[in-house]
Amino acid sequence: MPNAVPVLREAEALPQPYLLFLGDTTEPGYAKTAFGLRDWAGERCVGEFACAGATVSTGLPFLSPAQARLAGARAMVIGVANPGGRIPMAWLPPLLEALQAGLDLVGGMHARLAGIESLRSVAFAHGRRLIDVREPPPGIPVASGHRRTGRRLLTVGTDCALGKKYTALALVRAFRERGLDVDFRASGQTGILIAGEGIPMDAVVADFAAGAAEILSPDADPAHWDVIEGQGSLSHPAYAGVSLALLHGSQPDVIVVCHEHGRENVLGHPHYLLPSIEDTIDLALRLGARTNPAIRCAGVSLNTGSLDAAVAGRVIEETAARLGLPVADPIRGGDAFERLVEACLA
Amino acid sequence: MPNAVPVLREAEALPQPYLLFLGDTTEPGYAKTAFGLRDWAGERCVGEFACAGATVSTGLPFLSPAQARLAGARAMVIGVANPGGRIPMAWLPPLLEALQAGLDLVGGMHARLAGIESLRSVAFAHGRRLIDVREPPPGIPVASGHRRTGRRLLTVGTDCALGKKYTALALVRAFRERGLDVDFRASGQTGILIAGEGIPMDAVVADFAAGAAEILSPDADPAHWDVIEGQGSLSHPAYAGVSLALLHGSQPDVIVVCHEHGRENVLGHPHYLLPSIEDTIDLALRLGARTNPAIRCAGVSLNTGSLDAAVAGRVIEETAARLGLPVADPIRGGDAFERLVEACLA
Repeated sequence: MPNAVPVLREAEALPQPYLLFLGDTTEPGYAKTAFGLRDWAGERCVGEFACAGATVSTGLPFLSPAQARLAGARAMVIGVANPGGRIPMAWLPPLLEALQAGLDLVGGMHARLAGIESLRSVAFAHGRRLIDVREPPPGIPVASGHRRTGRRLLTVGTDCALGKKYTALALVRAFRERGLDVDFRASGQTGILIAGEGIPMDAVVADFAAGAAEILSPDADPAHWDVIEGQGSLSHPAYAGVSLALLHGSQPDVIVVCHEHGRENVLGHPHYLLPSIEDTIDLALRLGARTNPAIRCAGVSLNTGSLDAAVAGRVIEETAARLGLPVADPIRGGDAFERLVEACLA
Repeated sequence: MPNAVPVLREAEALPQPYLLFLGDTTEPGYAKTAFGLRDWAGERCVGEFACAGATVSTGLPFLSPAQARLAGARAMVIGVANPGGRIPMAWLPPLLEALQAGLDLVGGMHARLAGIESLRSVAFAHGRRLIDVREPPPGIPVASGHRRTGRRLLTVGTDCALGKKYTALALVRAFRERGLDVDFRASGQTGILIAGEGIPMDAVVADFAAGAAEILSPDADPAHWDVIEGQGSLSHPAYAGVSLALLHGSQPDVIVVCHEHGRENVLGHPHYLLPSIEDTIDLALRLGARTNPAIRCAGVSLNTGSLDAAVAGRVIEETAARLGLPVADPIRGGDAFERLVEACLA
């Protein structure tokens, strides 16, 4: 890799504010990076941009790169994480347009921006940077399996892209409001963009994935909480290995299982039915007990974004009654969410 | 990485015969590469070499690199796979001695031979090659989860380094003797050295690990068997994610669970008790059913190397009676192994 284009990974050094790039995406589930930045780092997002044909929107103003630059943007962030993390050819013209308009590019894909020759040469010619946040730190060890001090919570999903990061961020906010000492531990590219640090679990070499989870949430004060962003699902036909390594290495005391109401099939793998919440809890506790025998499930985070408030409230109550556990939608908050927070801390 | 030193990965191009290097190893479980080559590619091994202090031996003649070169050796193979796959400083003098004696070096560690400057410069000066077989092929896809044609068997362990590769190789030999169309699918460095091809599962980036397992055993004739070498264990505190990705991507019709009689703790993680055979079968069938609902356990491969023949026979019988499944030690063979082979094919 030529060194002519500076390549950074520290989020604190990221040029801000952002223009969010949505590619040619028609599936909202793939745009979680853009939605996450809008919701958790909204003060650093001036607008959105997309290819012709994209149907997904964050609701932010649609700005060309030149308009965004005039509005103060310093970088365009790729806000889409499609399966496999590749950069389609159709994205190159808008990416080049952003560089030419004076914006740096920030990406969190498996494919590295700095690995594309045309981006490198145009970035170099315009004095712009290509910043890849999905680059794990060097020297990750094999997991030791030794217990660490401090308290840990991991969000565990029935699928990808249904609220594990949102749930973790909402719990961190609620823990902080109660005066607790808590850190959000980001395990994916969007979380890293929001938190300013973290480890992109899915980009770590498989033998070291549990070791990466161990260093993501190191020894801490006994009263300190790490709230760790989950990845994938233990029942996902492609990513379950990542989820299991994260579960084993995180050694959570508490899990919160995350599900989207009404989702019946695995996102991007429609020939696979989603596991039930009950089966997900049972499997996560069985597997997680291997590295933390005291693991427990505090409750369920239910994404009810597709329902109106009254129906959502009823679904949340019915699910809580069925499971005998606190159930809440963190986006809706309310008493149900307070009960979930209390159950985490119990 | 400079290109001055040729770096190969095709096993068919490996220089042979080999001198087996045992490092400074005192733990036989870490020398499985050397033992595997002795047992399954013995006609290509002229002897062994080690640092002072090593206590492990393959039983082959101890030869200096110069003596081995005179005996016809063309390469020294690193026959040790220690945790994390690093190359200790203590190994450098003997590795340099081998290059100076006219041998190429072949390694299967995570640490690349070609990543060590002193090895590169001495190899270049002597016209020798540094060959790293633990380099996954480029372009591995995310797993699709789609069922493939042909029949598949995966060996599943209660731990690392207790006979998963041996069991797979012994089953391949037995299937061949019955006239079946069968391939050994190597998933680790030793298997790749023996088979001449394969994918080093533990070196694949985590998000693509199940995808690697899918391309390792591609669509085949309905009567064809792939016998896939297992990795790690589903209960291993460091490597379970690799094992689960291999299980999901392999979509085995049949598993054979591999255990070493008398092993009570996880190798290298003595604070972890080994799971029982029963729990390993139950967990593998539960997790494996996600991508192949017809998965079944044909029986157990029991490593009884620490016992004399009479005791081993009794232990094998007792274990078979307890489990209600065929149990055999493939190294001992006999009627018990024939019954295990028949159960795989049933």
